[in-house]
Amino acid sequence: MEHGGDIYTYGERFKGEILDYSSNINPLGPPEGLMDHLLKGYDELLRYPDIQYRRLGREVSAYLGCGMENTIVGNGAVEIIDNFIMDSHRVVLMEPCFSEYELRAQAHNKELLLIQSKKDYSLDLDSFMGKLRRGDLVILGNPNNPTGKRIEKEELIRLHEEVVHSGAYLLLDEAFFEFSPEDYDSVELFREWGYESVGIIRAATKFFSLPGIRLGYCCAGAIKAKKIRGLQLPWSVNSMADRAGLHIFKDKEYISMTKEYVNLRREELLDGIKKIPGIHPYPSQSNYILLRLEKVNEDYIFQKLINEGIMVRKCSSFKVLSDNHIRIAVKDLKSNQMLLEKLSRIMANNSRE
Amino acid sequence: MEHGGDIYTYGERFKGEILDYSSNINPLGPPEGLMDHLLKGYDELLRYPDIQYRRLGREVSAYLGCGMENTIVGNGAVEIIDNFIMDSHRVVLMEPCFSEYELRAQAHNKELLLIQSKKDYSLDLDSFMGKLRRGDLVILGNPNNPTGKRIEKEELIRLHEEVVHSGAYLLLDEAFFEFSPEDYDSVELFREWGYESVGIIRAATKFFSLPGIRLGYCCAGAIKAKKIRGLQLPWSVNSMADRAGLHIFKDKEYISMTKEYVNLRREELLDGIKKIPGIHPYPSQSNYILLRLEKVNEDYIFQKLINEGIMVRKCSSFKVLSDNHIRIAVKDLKSNQMLLEKLSRIMANNSRE
Repeated sequence: MEHGGDIYTYGERFKGEILDYSSNINPLGPPEGLMDHLLKGYDELLRYPDIQYRRLGREVSAYLGCGMENTIVGNGAVEIIDNFIMDSHRVVLMEPCFSEYELRAQAHNKELLLIQSKKDYSLDLDSFMGKLRRGDLVILGNPNNPTGKRIEKEELIRLHEEVVHSGAYLLLDEAFFEFSPEDYDSVELFREWGYESVGIIRAATKFFSLPGIRLGYCCAGAIKAKKIRGLQLPWSVNSMADRAGLHIFKDKEYISMTKEYVNLRREELLDGIKKIPGIHPYPSQSNYILLRLEKVNEDYIFQKLINEGIMVRKCSSFKVLSDNHIRIAVKDLKSNQMLLEKLSRIMANNSRE
Repeated sequence: MEHGGDIYTYGERFKGEILDYSSNINPLGPPEGLMDHLLKGYDELLRYPDIQYRRLGREVSAYLGCGMENTIVGNGAVEIIDNFIMDSHRVVLMEPCFSEYELRAQAHNKELLLIQSKKDYSLDLDSFMGKLRRGDLVILGNPNNPTGKRIEKEELIRLHEEVVHSGAYLLLDEAFFEFSPEDYDSVELFREWGYESVGIIRAATKFFSLPGIRLGYCCAGAIKAKKIRGLQLPWSVNSMADRAGLHIFKDKEYISMTKEYVNLRREELLDGIKKIPGIHPYPSQSNYILLRLEKVNEDYIFQKLINEGIMVRKCSSFKVLSDNHIRIAVKDLKSNQMLLEKLSRIMANNSRE
């Protein structure tokens, strides 16, 4: 299955450093002092991590604002998603979405139900009504990948009611949450329900710019959280990820600075894209933008850009997206300007061809 | 589930550093230069690892002496075991064994078949005959945990024949292989069969003294290996583990020195234990020893030792072992002598009580 961030396959063909617009990580890099903090605890690699991850659980619980009993940590968000899928009868998805949801459902031989979104890829609440049943696991990206769409707060509350009513379970994949404009926080929103029938997953991978360290975490109801922890592989979070948790959540300045920076750069990038004839961006509340291409297909743009050392994400591997979509990350000002220039040139040349 | 290495639960009660005889890692520590090698590649944490782990696969293939197409890498040996279990119909075990085999089978709702060993916990080939069927996954520790027993070469060949004949699959968990006296190498042994119906798992955790880095690897037939890789979580091996693979396998001197050292220390420790009245060691071909206790139970020894800062592995959580067994690691000379002294004193005091 195709994924973003595969600089290993294409890096060999392009001589030089690839500018990776296919993976969506914090353009500011990891929080200051993190590397020092990790280096100091290097000998933790020589011991097993705490099989109960008590230290890490305390940090996650303080950061998310939920109880220790509500926390789950995992080998990236994807391990936690996988364990929720194991504990379900049927997996309910709204396409297009992160391809691993469906792949993991297939790996565990789970039945699938695919729900239609609205034409602009936003949630169509009506299409969920009456379709859910006991044991269903509804997985929704919030914001969703690759569309960049957040679920409206009121819609989310109504969907949660329907989920509770039908005995299903709602799993929100919020791996990109911190990049979103501040509308609402699901952990706050569902606190009064004690996270009944809802789990909220976040990840260090994207926001803290640490895709190689593999750290995901989740807030869920205490009973469900205990069950999911019981399904996990022992020691699945490595000692460096365990240790990183002591540092990353405390840097409030880095966190607010990133939010501001990414919001600014995203709006600039959106404005720039809108001026390029033949490329149509979808509005985004995340650190990536889905683009629809006119006249040319994803391969055309991918090849033109990779020849210049820029890698974007082709999107035809996302179900329901045809081969005229690409996804780009939001990066620093200079890189974004370079991308815009190259895209403008490619489209201008194409229309002259 | 109880596991070795849980210094986090007991460390708080004992004021001071715990001498951990409950987890079985290389007493010589990691290979020289490894830490430097990891430090130099620290910025790999800021990128996704290669989702296909091509670099790591090449190192594993060279170290094990099998083809690239035969290799699987994982988040510790336990992730690979888990993926083989997912791909089975029924899991066949010989108790006592690593408790995760059964736990993972339960997590995936797999049927279980428990086979009787001989009284000395060695393999009873006859008890496998006629019992296996298509889709069975036979998992055997080699050497086995907690008994320290290697499977005799001739027995293994005959078991493999029975496995092939019945359409089952044999998974050898050789996480402790490098600590064994040099009798045979399963990777060599099954090469001429192209690893038909047999997978051989090993781990960096134990031998390279890196339990916190999480790195396991496996040699299997090309078709099966491809299938198992397809069932794995994406990016399940973190960037530091991926990078460690570039270094650890090349240090041939460290590898042969460890073998020699552990073999020497194990025999010394066995001799020492035999002299203590009331404690009976099982012969071991690994870096740990199973002890049967007379008159006292595991809790008695555990409490007496933990009060002196030494943690051993209680064994009643292993099925078929009653509460009169403990498992101890093989460590350095000084530590082993300290353990022997304390054990002698505890048993002498007990017989006077």
